[in-house]
Amino acid sequence: MFKNILETIVVNCSGGIGAVLMGYDGIGIDQYVIEEKTLDLNLVGIEYSNVTKEIAGAAEILNIGKLQEVSIKTEFYYVIIHALTDDYFVALMVERSGNYGQGRYLLMRESHALRLGLE
Amino acid sequence: MFKNILETIVVNCSGGIGAVLMGYDGIGIDQYVIEEKTLDLNLVGIEYSNVTKEIAGAAEILNIGKLQEVSIKTEFYYVIIHALTDDYFVALMVERSGNYGQGRYLLMRESHALRLGLE
Repeated sequence: MFKNILETIVVNCSGGIGAVLMGYDGIGIDQYVIEEKTLDLNLVGIEYSNVTKEIAGAAEILNIGKLQEVSIKTEFYYVIIHALTDDYFVALMVERSGNYGQGRYLLMRESHALRLGLE
Repeated sequence: MFKNILETIVVNCSGGIGAVLMGYDGIGIDQYVIEEKTLDLNLVGIEYSNVTKEIAGAAEILNIGKLQEVSIKTEFYYVIIHALTDDYFVALMVERSGNYGQGRYLLMRESHALRLGLE
């Protein structure tokens, strides 16, 4: 069930490469990567699960409200992390030539369905 | 000199609260906060300097290119972190009702002047 939602996010996002549903403990639930890419999305998720947890902790310390989203822009990619529950997040990777705004929107739009599946 | 640039960023961003120029070691160089706010921007910078360094390290491990920007969206605020040099970044805090896109643009526009000042 999750794979279909992840696929919807990736294929509808211009420049979308892959999406992963993962726990903050770095354990992935499901992922979808477009065929021609050899990206290790699981590794991306693991690397960022820990920092996302730290960012969420910092937000709590600073009293600026619960963490909802983290966007990372590097030379080659966008990584958009959308918090789903206290334990899980979804991350989308988009090429720099792709549509970052579209990716953010799709994650938000599909977050409800992902949350329902996690319950 | 830095304060003027930080002020330009904050006052021109709808919902802009404050901006801080800081090292990844958590030592702030300068900051500008709009008068009516009692926000401890230095604390925000310190909390996020470390995670930004970790995100940059993760980007290196993943071979996805140099970190350029991190955007954090919480219940109440946007925090936009723009990497300037290997040692320094600028962070802008924007209210959730404010204009996130405008903030990103202003940080990018003024990053050149900030970099020049850091040389």
